[in-house]
Amino acid sequence: MTKYRIEKDTMGQVEVPADKYWGAQTERSRNNFKIGPAASMPLEVVYGFAYLKKAAAYTNAELGVLATEKRDLIAQVCDEILAGKHDDQFPLVIWQTGSGTQSNMNVNEVIANRAHEIAGNVIGEGEKTIQPNDDVNKSQSSNDTFPTGMHIAAYKKIVEVTIPGVEQLRDTLQAKAEAFKDVVKIGRTHLMDATPLTLGQEFSGYVAQLNFGLKALKNTLAHLAQLALGGTAVGTGLNTPAGYDVLVAKYIAEFTELPFVTAENKFEALAAHDALVETHGALKQLAVSLNKIANDIRLMASGPRSGIGEIIIPANEPGSSIMPGKVNPTQAEAMTMVCAQVMGNDVAVTVGGTQGHYELNVFKPMMAANVLQSAQLIGDACVSFDVNCAAGIEPNQTRITELLNNSLMLVTALNTKIGYYKAAEIANTAHANGTTLKEEAVRLGYVTPEQYDEWVKPEDMTGSLK
Amino acid sequence: MTKYRIEKDTMGQVEVPADKYWGAQTERSRNNFKIGPAASMPLEVVYGFAYLKKAAAYTNAELGVLATEKRDLIAQVCDEILAGKHDDQFPLVIWQTGSGTQSNMNVNEVIANRAHEIAGNVIGEGEKTIQPNDDVNKSQSSNDTFPTGMHIAAYKKIVEVTIPGVEQLRDTLQAKAEAFKDVVKIGRTHLMDATPLTLGQEFSGYVAQLNFGLKALKNTLAHLAQLALGGTAVGTGLNTPAGYDVLVAKYIAEFTELPFVTAENKFEALAAHDALVETHGALKQLAVSLNKIANDIRLMASGPRSGIGEIIIPANEPGSSIMPGKVNPTQAEAMTMVCAQVMGNDVAVTVGGTQGHYELNVFKPMMAANVLQSAQLIGDACVSFDVNCAAGIEPNQTRITELLNNSLMLVTALNTKIGYYKAAEIANTAHANGTTLKEEAVRLGYVTPEQYDEWVKPEDMTGSLK
Amino acid sequence: MTKYRIEKDTMGQVEVPADKYWGAQTERSRNNFKIGPAASMPLEVVYGFAYLKKAAAYTNAELGVLATEKRDLIAQVCDEILAGKHDDQFPLVIWQTGSGTQSNMNVNEVIANRAHEIAGNVIGEGEKTIQPNDDVNKSQSSNDTFPTGMHIAAYKKIVEVTIPGVEQLRDTLQAKAEAFKDVVKIGRTHLMDATPLTLGQEFSGYVAQLNFGLKALKNTLAHLAQLALGGTAVGTGLNTPAGYDVLVAKYIAEFTELPFVTAENKFEALAAHDALVETHGALKQLAVSLNKIANDIRLMASGPRSGIGEIIIPANEPGSSIMPGKVNPTQAEAMTMVCAQVMGNDVAVTVGGTQGHYELNVFKPMMAANVLQSAQLIGDACVSFDVNCAAGIEPNQTRITELLNNSLMLVTALNTKIGYYKAAEIANTAHANGTTLKEEAVRLGYVTPEQYDEWVKPEDMTGSLK
Amino acid sequence: MTKYRIEKDTMGQVEVPADKYWGAQTERSRNNFKIGPAASMPLEVVYGFAYLKKAAAYTNAELGVLATEKRDLIAQVCDEILAGKHDDQFPLVIWQTGSGTQSNMNVNEVIANRAHEIAGNVIGEGEKTIQPNDDVNKSQSSNDTFPTGMHIAAYKKIVEVTIPGVEQLRDTLQAKAEAFKDVVKIGRTHLMDATPLTLGQEFSGYVAQLNFGLKALKNTLAHLAQLALGGTAVGTGLNTPAGYDVLVAKYIAEFTELPFVTAENKFEALAAHDALVETHGALKQLAVSLNKIANDIRLMASGPRSGIGEIIIPANEPGSSIMPGKVNPTQAEAMTMVCAQVMGNDVAVTVGGTQGHYELNVFKPMMAANVLQSAQLIGDACVSFDVNCAAGIEPNQTRITELLNNSLMLVTALNTKIGYYKAAEIANTAHANGTTLKEEAVRLGYVTPEQYDEWVKPEDMTGSLK
Repeated sequence: MTKYRIEKDTMGQVEVPADKYWGAQTERSRNNFKIGPAASMPLEVVYGFAYLKKAAAYTNAELGVLATEKRDLIAQVCDEILAGKHDDQFPLVIWQTGSGTQSNMNVNEVIANRAHEIAGNVIGEGEKTIQPNDDVNKSQSSNDTFPTGMHIAAYKKIVEVTIPGVEQLRDTLQAKAEAFKDVVKIGRTHLMDATPLTLGQEFSGYVAQLNFGLKALKNTLAHLAQLALGGTAVGTGLNTPAGYDVLVAKYIAEFTELPFVTAENKFEALAAHDALVETHGALKQLAVSLNKIANDIRLMASGPRSGIGEIIIPANEPGSSIMPGKVNPTQAEAMTMVCAQVMGNDVAVTVGGTQGHYELNVFKPMMAANVLQSAQLIGDACVSFDVNCAAGIEPNQTRITELLNNSLMLVTALNTKIGYYKAAEIANTAHANGTTLKEEAVRLGYVTPEQYDEWVKPEDMTGSLK
Repeated sequence: MTKYRIEKDTMGQVEVPADKYWGAQTERSRNNFKIGPAASMPLEVVYGFAYLKKAAAYTNAELGVLATEKRDLIAQVCDEILAGKHDDQFPLVIWQTGSGTQSNMNVNEVIANRAHEIAGNVIGEGEKTIQPNDDVNKSQSSNDTFPTGMHIAAYKKIVEVTIPGVEQLRDTLQAKAEAFKDVVKIGRTHLMDATPLTLGQEFSGYVAQLNFGLKALKNTLAHLAQLALGGTAVGTGLNTPAGYDVLVAKYIAEFTELPFVTAENKFEALAAHDALVETHGALKQLAVSLNKIANDIRLMASGPRSGIGEIIIPANEPGSSIMPGKVNPTQAEAMTMVCAQVMGNDVAVTVGGTQGHYELNVFKPMMAANVLQSAQLIGDACVSFDVNCAAGIEPNQTRITELLNNSLMLVTALNTKIGYYKAAEIANTAHANGTTLKEEAVRLGYVTPEQYDEWVKPEDMTGSLK
Repeated sequence: MTKYRIEKDTMGQVEVPADKYWGAQTERSRNNFKIGPAASMPLEVVYGFAYLKKAAAYTNAELGVLATEKRDLIAQVCDEILAGKHDDQFPLVIWQTGSGTQSNMNVNEVIANRAHEIAGNVIGEGEKTIQPNDDVNKSQSSNDTFPTGMHIAAYKKIVEVTIPGVEQLRDTLQAKAEAFKDVVKIGRTHLMDATPLTLGQEFSGYVAQLNFGLKALKNTLAHLAQLALGGTAVGTGLNTPAGYDVLVAKYIAEFTELPFVTAENKFEALAAHDALVETHGALKQLAVSLNKIANDIRLMASGPRSGIGEIIIPANEPGSSIMPGKVNPTQAEAMTMVCAQVMGNDVAVTVGGTQGHYELNVFKPMMAANVLQSAQLIGDACVSFDVNCAAGIEPNQTRITELLNNSLMLVTALNTKIGYYKAAEIANTAHANGTTLKEEAVRLGYVTPEQYDEWVKPEDMTGSLK
Repeated sequence: MTKYRIEKDTMGQVEVPADKYWGAQTERSRNNFKIGPAASMPLEVVYGFAYLKKAAAYTNAELGVLATEKRDLIAQVCDEILAGKHDDQFPLVIWQTGSGTQSNMNVNEVIANRAHEIAGNVIGEGEKTIQPNDDVNKSQSSNDTFPTGMHIAAYKKIVEVTIPGVEQLRDTLQAKAEAFKDVVKIGRTHLMDATPLTLGQEFSGYVAQLNFGLKALKNTLAHLAQLALGGTAVGTGLNTPAGYDVLVAKYIAEFTELPFVTAENKFEALAAHDALVETHGALKQLAVSLNKIANDIRLMASGPRSGIGEIIIPANEPGSSIMPGKVNPTQAEAMTMVCAQVMGNDVAVTVGGTQGHYELNVFKPMMAANVLQSAQLIGDACVSFDVNCAAGIEPNQTRITELLNNSLMLVTALNTKIGYYKAAEIANTAHANGTTLKEEAVRLGYVTPEQYDEWVKPEDMTGSLK
């Protein structure tokens, strides 16, 4: 049977499970927001809070408004949280107040109660050694801490998961582009046979896409690095000591080893979350690129006998519960599902971003959760796709050559020799008769066999931009 | 040099081009909203207004609040508008006030001035025979006329363009499903070779998709048939005579020959446009279906020599400005571009739908324009796709047979005879050795040649649900 | 230290944690798809599988292709799964193969191994009593089981969570509409003062919105009730006994007590998931409605002293960590965050829906997960909003009266007496002078004080459509 | 009666209106794609083509593959097109082949026929002086010209319309931020009363949003500046002379006076249009910002008597056709409708961006049209909003002071003096009793009247970050 202790806040007393560090406001939120699975608020945001609570304590102490003992107690609990020791102390959901106030209080309460315990007391007994609002939350408001926590969480996720994941895949594709640089194959436009190129050139396009995407994503980091902390309730910095905002950002930068700075305009930083919109926009761009890449690869790998079959991808698992021996492009499927999700998340983030009112945007937890999910999924999916698919891609040379030599679009090489119209006549005639270009080119009297062989060399058709 | 006359409204005097019927408020809006191309407000909405202004005049007259002479003058101008005689009198843009007030006034002003002219007067001279607000707009507000006009416009577009277009394509696909019912071909799942089915079965799936989509679209018409007219400013029906709302809907139904009725709740009908959200949701579903169909057809038609090539689609135009003889699935491309646009429009309509405040949603013109565009594009694209592509689709029997017989997935027929594991061994071995299933099945000793021939018949594998 | 046993599939041997029921293919998928948090595949889909595996066993037995003993073993494990006894046996993620093949195999493997155990054997020892593919998956393919499982899951969620949740809120709003039917207040259009209505009328609009949304959602259930099962690999029903598809749907309907039927076209049911697109479209419509309702309520509750303040909503928690005594419309915020998420999910589902190729759509897990999340969130958020906000809404009569009597828009009642232009002059003059309508109306000589009092009665202005 | 002449292409003869310059392929496209209104292909793309056709002619001539006379004829027609002399010669729609091939041919044909005429010949008579494919299209393909044309069009629109429009509004808001820097007002979070700030601070947040948006948009220009031209059919540059790609970009840069360069990877530039996705992502971010700004302004302007009423916006037109004297925030409505459209367009562009296959993305016209529309609408809407609304915004000082002094949230200033809990008690008591903070603060014995007056000064609460 669950035991309870009494916690209180400005509204009165609340029963809280006795074995939990959280207090009255967390418990109220648990009861008032039974929406979706419990504890859906991303732990990354909680960790972001841990960094900022510690930084605030250091800053408050340095600026003379918090005792060193209190600073150290707060910092110690923050370090425990960051070490993952209190992951089960944050039971709240995304779908709470849109400022994330109760998640801020959840952190404040856990820190206060745990600090009380560290200080040698029993939770729920005696005056709290550390007050959740007056000490842990000193010089802060939910309105500046939550956006700070979500910027820290998002920035870390982008640089620790997303970018490395995309770069890992990019590097493999780059290596493949080089390895396949002499594999001449048929090109396809409109899904139809076109003039040749090399498989390496195709892969170089993928590399270029990811490089553009990485650049776009990195472009957004400067905005994400700006922290709202110091704005407090409405952006004015009420109840903060002079110099607080700059110093607290410096401490956060130090603790996270990331280039955070104080926001140049605190009103924007509380009332709008365009930084998240901006960052997610770049994630969406990456999803667009990755979708193209995954689609191409599964199209080229289709078959094994009745599809395109130009490349071979690793067979990682039995593909079918009913069709024996079937192998499927499952990594491409996981990737494109991730891309669709990211495209959807982008709309959620965008809608949330539009709806700030006056001094506050109250779609914070939803926006943060979507950015974190997209950043994680893209990073993870790139690694999975890389390890389990891209790294093992090999050309099916026999098939590539067969398809290349069949193509009627080699006729394009004759445009500059005999003109577009005569070249079209050759192709159309060969298509109608089921013959080869060379046969018809010679029969129609437009070229000699020797000229044909000299002018129509697939490998020469791939070259001018190699 | 443009000549001007003076028109006035409650704010004062405005110079209006002398050769135009519109008045002061239209001119103000022209000057105040220079956003995008001129006259972007869809004419269909204007025509919707013409129906409702005429119906309001009849209703007002019948209920004793408008003179018969005024009714007839108003009705005459409405008929002229519906005959397309005044298309150049509606210069306003979508991006105006979100209630469409100035477009309502544009109609009121054009009717009033043209009626003045019909009555034998010179526009701009003398007391107006018909007052824009007190007569043409009698028992109305922009807040109930604009939603009424957009419902009329959307309903007409759906039943006159969208549904017939989709049905036309559906009928062709149905005819193809029957024509191709004995064309056994390889199935593909995950883009990979799978067990066989008939080309007719594939097409029957497309037919089923469109039938579901049509049903979903028709499900939305009942909501769209509900008209806001009679709610006036905030939904209470202030300044309307008793019985007005029911009667005016009856007149609109009579004039349009469509089953319009008065909205059961006028507050909903002004403050929310969920009916448009609902209808556009069904248009989006059709876009999803059409995208799948168009994609499949271009994949199956890909080639001619180095793709799938199972079907042949009409060659309507030279496909390339550089590659002679190239033919592309251009109708599928137009269709999928339309689908992407409709998917985007759905978000615009959805966002607009969420943002009503209190008694009014002020995203009306934007929502109406998107619904009308999507409805038109889907209807037109279906007809274009039907006439220029679907109707001409033919199977490439040689290629179909070649791909079918190559397939390793025919082994699935052996599951119920020798079990999934042994069947998988046969397929894997044949794949590794580049041999046929039969060779390996017999070599492995799992079946006799006779058993193989009896058990593995592609045409028998398509049958149980035919 | 984790102990392992060896499991095998057609690709060879795999080490599996010894204390888990799952087999080789589940383990492969665990290792191959490390994308996002573990076990993200919704349990609701697993339960959907449990229903269908049991139904398939019964059908196979009844049609003579499965022994009764095997049927009973399979059914027993399915019942255990449905009782929640094996929730920790389904570790796979959404972001796997797009057919959900490994989740189908996860269920097959768990059933097979647990049945082996129930039959008195030790897992991993001896010939399996029940084979995952040949017995549990008999007459099935991932391609028809996964869509069946997701339809069961989605249908149940809609009727058990979404509809009851929305109806609960709708009923409360309906009760409020009646309770507030005589509370005359100022109307607002364009966020600006407009003619009066009753608070009950405002709430009746919300009720109408939700009723339309519920109807739209229920319209989609017929499509969702159609089950793919019986189509097997590509829709042809290969390897199913005659009559299987109809009978298995009957068993599922019996076990779930929901009106499931076999899909009228199995090719559509595998290759397209327009049913999910359709259902999610209705969820999105509800999100649009709920967003409007929640927005209105927080606007009307804004204040307490410097906002609108016409209604009072329950104070459930301290609103601010820095501003003492603050109370916020937190339920409205949770609701609108949910709405934004559903709008995003709609795009994900839509994008997934467009991308079926040939005989299979491989965005199944992603589409299912989004539909289930949206359905859950809307249902939960409605209940939370109802219990913690809507049920406690009370009018602030003093404030309502104050704002009503101030309004200049009461002048509209004079339109039918003195005409729009003179009425406008009165309003404009009162606005400019900061005086009352009555003062200016009389001063301008357009009405007598007695006429004014007789004609301008707010309560009479709300009436014609009450 | 329309007269026709015969034109031909590789597929045969076509009747073309005799008074038009276009040829066979344009006419085929007109007939094959009757989707939506005629001539919907944006003229900006046509002008982009005119720049590149001229540049290609110069490059071809300089590299020795085109005669100078032909170059000059081509260039002369291009200049005529750019002067707007042939706007009626481009009748094609967006919803055509996804490569825009027929629009490329439309330009080629118009140039060829008009050049024939300039050269003193009669159109349709004699050998064409200039061949559409072999001369005008020399060293080009639709596949590299269309993306080049759309990059030119989009880049020009962004720098000529979007950025100046946003900057104009930004500058006005910046001026207002300075003008209002001493207007202390109540802050609002969660739409509820919060601690004070200045009106200037609020506006400074809008300025910051637009500055971030402008920066994000400018970040995308480098990608947009990369031109596909030189890639020809599949990206290899087949049929181009050495050095062509770099030189042609140089000419385009010279003719447009914009910093265009040749694409670093031509395969990416043809097969993916992530540059458009990237640019539109930034447009969407601006839409998010502008939506917040417009929403805030209409909320603050709401009233005039029963809303917030803190600012006064210009009255540009009568607001209602039924409510005399009503003034509405119509510019905010136009702006937010534009924002919703841009959010929808973003999805269309995104979906199109995902669907490139192999060497070509065939959603080009749709993507280009959406980017151009969004760029135009945002630029225009900013100017309209600036001129007709923002520039005229004035504070309503009386109302601002009244609302400020009423606020209970001034109590926050006491947090650092007496602690959060006692401050909350004061606010809650004042709220319950309808009294002032000072009364309760003193009555509760927490502060003296003198302390209250010293500590609670709204103007001091706005200061620390001014």
